[in-house]
Amino acid sequence: NRELKLFSGSANPALARAICSYLDLPLGAATVSSFSDGEIRIRVEENVRGADVFVTQSCCSPVNDSIMEMLIMIDALKRSSANRITAVIPYFGYARQDRKDQPRVPISAKLVADIITTAGADRVLTMDLHASQIQGFFNIPVDNLYALPVLMDYITKRKVSDLVVVSPDAGGVERARAFAKRLQANLAIIDKRREGPNQAQVMNIIGDVQGKSALLLDDMIDTAGTIVQGAQACLDKGAREVWAGCSHGVLSGPALERLQQSGLTEVLVTDSIPLRGKEQKCPKLKVLSVAPLFGEAIRRIHEDESVSSLFV
Amino acid sequence: NRELKLFSGSANPALARAICSYLDLPLGAATVSSFSDGEIRIRVEENVRGADVFVTQSCCSPVNDSIMEMLIMIDALKRSSANRITAVIPYFGYARQDRKDQPRVPISAKLVADIITTAGADRVLTMDLHASQIQGFFNIPVDNLYALPVLMDYITKRKVSDLVVVSPDAGGVERARAFAKRLQANLAIIDKRREGPNQAQVMNIIGDVQGKSALLLDDMIDTAGTIVQGAQACLDKGAREVWAGCSHGVLSGPALERLQQSGLTEVLVTDSIPLRGKEQKCPKLKVLSVAPLFGEAIRRIHEDESVSSLFV
Ligand SMILES: Nc1ncnc2c1ncn2[C@@H]1O[C@H](COP(=O)(O)O)[C@@H](O)[C@H]1O
Ligand SMILES: Nc1ncnc2c1ncn2[C@@H]1O[C@H](COP(=O)(O)O)[C@@H](O)[C@H]1O
Repeated sequence: NRELKLFSGSANPALARAICSYLDLPLGAATVSSFSDGEIRIRVEENVRGADVFVTQSCCSPVNDSIMEMLIMIDALKRSSANRITAVIPYFGYARQDRKDQPRVPISAKLVADIITTAGADRVLTMDLHASQIQGFFNIPVDNLYALPVLMDYITKRKVSDLVVVSPDAGGVERARAFAKRLQANLAIIDKRREGPNQAQVMNIIGDVQGKSALLLDDMIDTAGTIVQGAQACLDKGAREVWAGCSHGVLSGPALERLQQSGLTEVLVTDSIPLRGKEQKCPKLKVLSVAPLFGEAIRRIHEDESVSSLFV
Repeated sequence: NRELKLFSGSANPALARAICSYLDLPLGAATVSSFSDGEIRIRVEENVRGADVFVTQSCCSPVNDSIMEMLIMIDALKRSSANRITAVIPYFGYARQDRKDQPRVPISAKLVADIITTAGADRVLTMDLHASQIQGFFNIPVDNLYALPVLMDYITKRKVSDLVVVSPDAGGVERARAFAKRLQANLAIIDKRREGPNQAQVMNIIGDVQGKSALLLDDMIDTAGTIVQGAQACLDKGAREVWAGCSHGVLSGPALERLQQSGLTEVLVTDSIPLRGKEQKCPKLKVLSVAPLFGEAIRRIHEDESVSSLFV
């Protein structure tokens, strides 16, 4: 049988180690460093001939280095005669550049999909793509996991009462609805509107949050502007407390300060992106691990089993 | 007739402006910036439908950002219906990773070639590729210019007498020979040898440098170890003075300090890579512009004329 091997880029080694520990597998030996001029230097340090290889790399900051490192690692493994290479990308970068919403802009998510394939990936395993359509940017199999069960487990354990799941904008309604349904909670939607060109934005909440525990749900929290505004709107409308949950804690720029100073009780993120000490600056952050989810998906892909039952 | 347009990435805008000034052309309007999380944000700000577009970007530090920016810019131009896109890459990065000189290493130069094509480049214009074979990594036309005439002009003007061109290693002999021939100067070669496992390296000079002005020639100066060692060897063997010349001043790590403290008289580099103030730290550096060379090559490619007469 083809041997399962897992290698990690330098973007999120802790997650890779946690996945390995789920799989009871040693991490594949590779040197990942850089030359004096900043060019990436990679050497696979063990035999991978004929192996079923998984390469984990998140597109986290510095995002371009992370992407190039993944490509070069895939190239090295391909040239080392790996039988099959699965790019495991817990956080898929450039996903918000997935359409021409203005004239003469790139569709960078498609470019990233193309160069991953060009480098030699045979399949992709990712989680909570910003848009499901990005699966169609690939001509190789893509499995798109959902962090939902992981967030849900935590919320259930915390026994948050009178829960209402809130989508911070119209684009996130489907995700929030799936979550609310599974938790048998109510659903609310924030509808941001600017009544006129120079008027302030008005936050309307469709649905009832009065006296409830609101859980704002999004696929990612980047600068945290949307989520913090949404939290304030919920509190203004009488919510008892407000939680936030997301799959990908990008947390760039003013995010940590904004979250910490907001009225949010707790902010749930997963380890798809490493926190690198951000929890210290923002103790409201609570990190949930997706390592067992990825570990199980990798095991099933390796065994040619279906991963679809993980998509609860 | 298809209009000629030139856009620049952020790696080397000064060179792009100098090329535009040679061509008497305004620089193409584009916004090149980044989002809060570090993802590159590009928007082409003028119509390029049907145009003959050139995109200049050097693979200089931070190299992975430079490469990704070039790819995303090509993607944006392609989706804006440019008729033809030529990637103008004065310094082609990852070129030293052009073969498997060890087991299980990538061939990153090939990967870079592939992803440039994948992004949508129709042709490539570059200069002094570390290995000419890299042209064969592409399946699109590649023009590889030589900085030789630019360096030669300067040396001729400086009226350096009793010149001997020195190759710092066996790999650079062809380049040094071409230069020596054109200048009707003699040729010498440095042959570095380690006589035994724990013995110091011995620098043999094949050829005569005694009482001569030695010009050490290489395609790039990176950390400057080779060139500074070579200069010392020439001085030890009685050279009157030693110059260094290269096409690409990568100048990373200890390079500036080493060059400044060396016995070198002057160090010639081109503007294929921006100096960004390095001349101040190392006044021995003398920057020669390849803008007219690139400008003329672009004009000829646009006019469907041959560029081969530039390869003197
Ligand atoms: N890295 C990024 N950070 C912030 N905004 C982005 C980023 N990438 C793309 N965008 C913008 O986000 C918008 C798309 O987001 P969405 O509507 O949530 O899919 C577009 O207007 C993009 O220009
Ligand atoms: N960016 C870099 N900086 C320093 N050395 C490199 C770099 N990229 C590749 N190399 C090494 O340079 C050697 C090839 O250089 P060369 O023999 O001059 O073609 C190989 O051993 C590479 O591992």
